[in-house]
Amino acid sequence: MARHTIHEFVAGVLDGNRRMVAKAITLVESARPQDAELGRALLTRLMPHTGGALRVGISGPPGAGKSTFIEVFGLYLIEQGLKVGVLAVDPSSSRSGGSILGDKTRMAQLTGAKQAFIRPSPAGRSLGGVARRTRESQLILEAAGFDIILIETVGVGQSETLVAGMVDLFALVALPNAGDELQGMKRGIMELADVVLVNKCDGAFVDAAQQTAAGVRSALKLLHGGSIGWDPEVTTMSAFEQSGLDDVWALLSRFQTTMKESGALTHKRQEQSKAWMWDLVQDGLKQRFMAHPEVQEILTHLESDVVAGKTTAVGAAEELLDRFTKAP
Amino acid sequence: MARHTIHEFVAGVLDGNRRMVAKAITLVESARPQDAELGRALLTRLMPHTGGALRVGISGPPGAGKSTFIEVFGLYLIEQGLKVGVLAVDPSSSRSGGSILGDKTRMAQLTGAKQAFIRPSPAGRSLGGVARRTRESQLILEAAGFDIILIETVGVGQSETLVAGMVDLFALVALPNAGDELQGMKRGIMELADVVLVNKCDGAFVDAAQQTAAGVRSALKLLHGGSIGWDPEVTTMSAFEQSGLDDVWALLSRFQTTMKESGALTHKRQEQSKAWMWDLVQDGLKQRFMAHPEVQEILTHLESDVVAGKTTAVGAAEELLDRFTKAP
Repeated sequence: MARHTIHEFVAGVLDGNRRMVAKAITLVESARPQDAELGRALLTRLMPHTGGALRVGISGPPGAGKSTFIEVFGLYLIEQGLKVGVLAVDPSSSRSGGSILGDKTRMAQLTGAKQAFIRPSPAGRSLGGVARRTRESQLILEAAGFDIILIETVGVGQSETLVAGMVDLFALVALPNAGDELQGMKRGIMELADVVLVNKCDGAFVDAAQQTAAGVRSALKLLHGGSIGWDPEVTTMSAFEQSGLDDVWALLSRFQTTMKESGALTHKRQEQSKAWMWDLVQDGLKQRFMAHPEVQEILTHLESDVVAGKTTAVGAAEELLDRFTKAP
Repeated sequence: MARHTIHEFVAGVLDGNRRMVAKAITLVESARPQDAELGRALLTRLMPHTGGALRVGISGPPGAGKSTFIEVFGLYLIEQGLKVGVLAVDPSSSRSGGSILGDKTRMAQLTGAKQAFIRPSPAGRSLGGVARRTRESQLILEAAGFDIILIETVGVGQSETLVAGMVDLFALVALPNAGDELQGMKRGIMELADVVLVNKCDGAFVDAAQQTAAGVRSALKLLHGGSIGWDPEVTTMSAFEQSGLDDVWALLSRFQTTMKESGALTHKRQEQSKAWMWDLVQDGLKQRFMAHPEVQEILTHLESDVVAGKTTAVGAAEELLDRFTKAP
């Protein structure tokens, strides 16, 4: 792509220039070393202008209507005068090509809206790498003045935990008659939820949706999950009929007010930043270890010895670590 | 303790001398640096004499009768002419003092038997450290000629995964009417099981135990869990009446034969050793990182900056990693 200076990037993003926002996200998503350096410099410059958005994670079992909800809720928020960013964390996107948000025709109206910015999941070799880039894209959107950021993820377990670690509020979209387990979602996911939105509360499904909401409400009370400083709540809506969106927005706003006033939101974000730093340190340590020439020299040999029972895992690990940390 | 030479340790362990076995385990459990070096040397010398035992992990919800089963089954195995080692991985042992196997009176008869060796869970700051020492104790018992090693653990999740990573066969002890979830055991644990032993198949509980066994059998079929090369099996027994122990032993022996003949056991152990080496490398990297003077110098400061939003987690992590890997 055409190169821009750091000043052009900073000015363009802070100005809310959509093309520059898109280019800045492409920059932090890039795997090229020279882009990485510029990307880090850009983020450092943008940091003072971040943190202004309500960060919302959205998950739920396949078919629960996450994308449809994001489309209609995004348009609803724009009607309220808000700027809406939509991101995704999808571990399948690099494998299958057919990923959430990958097909923008699924959110045709929202994609066309000037007050919205939609970005599909970055491809990446590791889920950690995908999550890292989504965190950074979120910061860029905040610096560009977006008021609310919706991060969609699929219901497969690990990606939920990563998304819950980068948002203020984690919401689950469920169908009526979801049962105790929200149709086979991994158990730990329910414990992450600050808000459960029972979708398809329309036509013949109204009763079932309300019963499901009551059931989920009881289950959440037993779980004691969600954010510190907030008791998880449940509401019903219909993405299809575009009903109940007022209630959803009222709930999200109440979460934001409650968490801000008590200081819990600040605390949560601080803990998230700290945890993120440690994740990056751990990943970085492993990367540098694997790239170390002296480690590479003996690794294959030592691993075979361990597999053959010729040396203990303890001895092999010590030798590798000594090679890595001794002076070059 | 009185110091022994490496030769005395090696000779004593290989001779099956109980006092030297106990001292060797104390040595590898020790946190003192000079012991660590001797311990590593000892393990390297013993390695060629390890691998001969059937390694069995035993878990299950509290109150399922794990300890009673281990006592009566241990005595049964001794009657068959076998030498039995019993170890434990108990993350609570360092906190509460009251831990599994900590109170040897619970296994009074087995503790008194000459053909048995019982060792409570090592205390440790981290579960990883506890697991590491138990792995090493297992190797010492194998070098000392024990034929079967039973490793007990409590049903809390993380410790099961660690134990399953160091044994050939992972067994769950359950009570009748355990229900789908084996009374609240974390879900992933069922997937680890090669064998489920439904206890208390005695008196008024025989029918319930057999029904439970049938239920667990169906559940296991759906889960597709257990070791590669083995379909999980279920049997009933009564630790109280000491009945069904023949069936348990027949099942364990069949597992061993099947897995040995197909080569699956060798493969499983090789993969376990490799994974263990990588766990140790990861732990070691973090330890050395935290102990690095240049890292310590800037860590507090950088962490505060990240928490305060003055710098990005990415920038802070990069700076820490650069300090760590640059020449001293």
